[in-house]
Amino acid sequence: MIYFDNAASSFPKPKKVVEAVVEALTEYGANPGRGAHALAERTAAIINEARKELALFFGLSYKNHVLFYQNATMALNQAIKGFPFKEGDHVIATVYEHNSVRRPLEACVKSKGIKVTYLSPNRGFHEEKWEDALEDNTKFIAVTHASNVTGDILPIEEIGLFAKKHGLTLLVDASQTAGVLPINMDELGIDMLAFPGHKGLLGPQGTGALLLNEKMDLAPIIHGGTGSHSEQIEQPGVLPDKFESGTLNTPGIAGLLAGVKVVKERTLDAIAKHESDLANYCIESLQTIGNVRLYGPGQSKQRIGVVSFAIEGIDSHEIAMILDQHYGIAVRAGLHCSPMAHEELGTIEGGLIRVSFGFANTKEEIDVLIQALTEITGYF
Amino acid sequence: MIYFDNAASSFPKPKKVVEAVVEALTEYGANPGRGAHALAERTAAIINEARKELALFFGLSYKNHVLFYQNATMALNQAIKGFPFKEGDHVIATVYEHNSVRRPLEACVKSKGIKVTYLSPNRGFHEEKWEDALEDNTKFIAVTHASNVTGDILPIEEIGLFAKKHGLTLLVDASQTAGVLPINMDELGIDMLAFPGHKGLLGPQGTGALLLNEKMDLAPIIHGGTGSHSEQIEQPGVLPDKFESGTLNTPGIAGLLAGVKVVKERTLDAIAKHESDLANYCIESLQTIGNVRLYGPGQSKQRIGVVSFAIEGIDSHEIAMILDQHYGIAVRAGLHCSPMAHEELGTIEGGLIRVSFGFANTKEEIDVLIQALTEITGYF
Repeated sequence: MIYFDNAASSFPKPKKVVEAVVEALTEYGANPGRGAHALAERTAAIINEARKELALFFGLSYKNHVLFYQNATMALNQAIKGFPFKEGDHVIATVYEHNSVRRPLEACVKSKGIKVTYLSPNRGFHEEKWEDALEDNTKFIAVTHASNVTGDILPIEEIGLFAKKHGLTLLVDASQTAGVLPINMDELGIDMLAFPGHKGLLGPQGTGALLLNEKMDLAPIIHGGTGSHSEQIEQPGVLPDKFESGTLNTPGIAGLLAGVKVVKERTLDAIAKHESDLANYCIESLQTIGNVRLYGPGQSKQRIGVVSFAIEGIDSHEIAMILDQHYGIAVRAGLHCSPMAHEELGTIEGGLIRVSFGFANTKEEIDVLIQALTEITGYF
Repeated sequence: MIYFDNAASSFPKPKKVVEAVVEALTEYGANPGRGAHALAERTAAIINEARKELALFFGLSYKNHVLFYQNATMALNQAIKGFPFKEGDHVIATVYEHNSVRRPLEACVKSKGIKVTYLSPNRGFHEEKWEDALEDNTKFIAVTHASNVTGDILPIEEIGLFAKKHGLTLLVDASQTAGVLPINMDELGIDMLAFPGHKGLLGPQGTGALLLNEKMDLAPIIHGGTGSHSEQIEQPGVLPDKFESGTLNTPGIAGLLAGVKVVKERTLDAIAKHESDLANYCIESLQTIGNVRLYGPGQSKQRIGVVSFAIEGIDSHEIAMILDQHYGIAVRAGLHCSPMAHEELGTIEGGLIRVSFGFANTKEEIDVLIQALTEITGYF
């Protein structure tokens, strides 16, 4: 079994992640912060440590501005729908946005009367394009750090400077890059950073986070018990309580904390190099197969370990199915929840085959894939 | 270590729950439904089985109307904020509602101009009280199945008939009763049922669900990728996709599925009897201590395994702390996120000590508690 679907969820999880989850489940799986007993205290301590670790890891000064959610989608919904948009406000996003950004934005188009421009960013940063997109009441930029379809890395450093120059709030979706590329919110001028816990950060599914810089003032989109200020009808104003209602996923967060520690041990440099090396090797090898059409930035340093391609005359889903059933190779076919990227590429009809790498993948596994694809194209 | 905080989260979890979580993490922790590969299929199959099991367990005909969330709070937010309230609509709730119901309702008071009446239901069902609360545009009843403060079970059968008679939508918060008392949505006329996975159902934290009957038509409060209909700007209309965006907590849901199976093996009858037996024994024993003031329905069949009390002249938090640190007994002190219940009881200032039982608790453990409390009251 070869797993090339790390852009959807990293697999396998490190042993330490599994151990941390089991420890939480069996030794202290209580409700944090809502009582004084020892299990609750231990739970609170682990969650607190996870906040601290993530704040440090992403260059955020306030650990209580690390907010835990079920997934990145929930974090992105909080970031977008909680923003104090007024009617007529304008947002710049890109065609690389996942539906987890696009659909909440479009929901705000309907409910709050905002407008959204989806930029088609050429590779590199072309300021005139961004300047052209500006409107009088542009307030907000929502941008993915890297495309989950093409593997393109977006120039968030320059986008950060642009946002600062024009006084815009910057939300970065780091779903494909958290745990792979260095991200320092403070240095990059990122106001809000959202990411899943279960991809590059190697934690379990059921985890995601939103990190807010000190200036951000959002309205909570979820209300409920926080174990604090219980007598108030309104949600408490203090963070993280304001944005975290109900019981947190303690085993998941404990696993995420362990995952971040593994990432730090491996180092981001080594992880990013490993993934782009594999991507570049994969692209090189795919080119040896006839009828393969590659999409994305090609062999480049400005890419993550995601490679998408089509084989002329064969349906993407069929190839994925054959790879799975006959060769035990797990890839994805389709639109990957990012239809605008496919419109841009002209692949909205058939979608693409996506191969995405993780730390456990090897060049030998890519050789097996190439051999399989060569055989498959031979049949047709 | 004696754990009497099962109303916050059940502990310890059954071994089978831990095993199911580990199996998901190590063997198939992929992203369900978003690709055709074997791990994704296995993930989808487990989640599908969990939906089926929960639908059956709660008397719901449609497994795809079982929606998974991070916790009951999120499920309740979806149920309340997704309801098509119009300005001036009226809701009946009770003073037993947890902040996970009260705060979303109050958020709708602000954002949608609804009105809410919080009934103080006497024990038993007093229809005239409910009739009195009715207004011309009453649309909705939100009611907890049992109080997390007093242990009172509310008469949801009669409330269901009342809701039906007046054409009102009925939302039941089963946070304290799912996995303890039988709940059949169809028979009881419940339109929406919300519950956590990590309390009576014995699953891990990070799980909760909302079950919708076939008539319910809500607007989603979260938007994002669903792995289906990716080309649509709008959230797909099909369930569960409409209400489940982003990656689900697969290990958590696998654990919840295992938890439900354990509950079925133990049988609800045995579980409910065990918990009310312990509660009644605890109440009886507490009465032997001077200065103990008990709250709630007393020794009764209409109660769950939650007992709250105060000791005159000693702060609740101090008692909880001493129980924890000197005796290794975990209880809760405070308002338990249900301030209205405390207003009703006249305990909003100091709060109460809450002892809540699970399947693993024994009468011997209660004896230890009583001995400890006797010693503590002796010191003061």
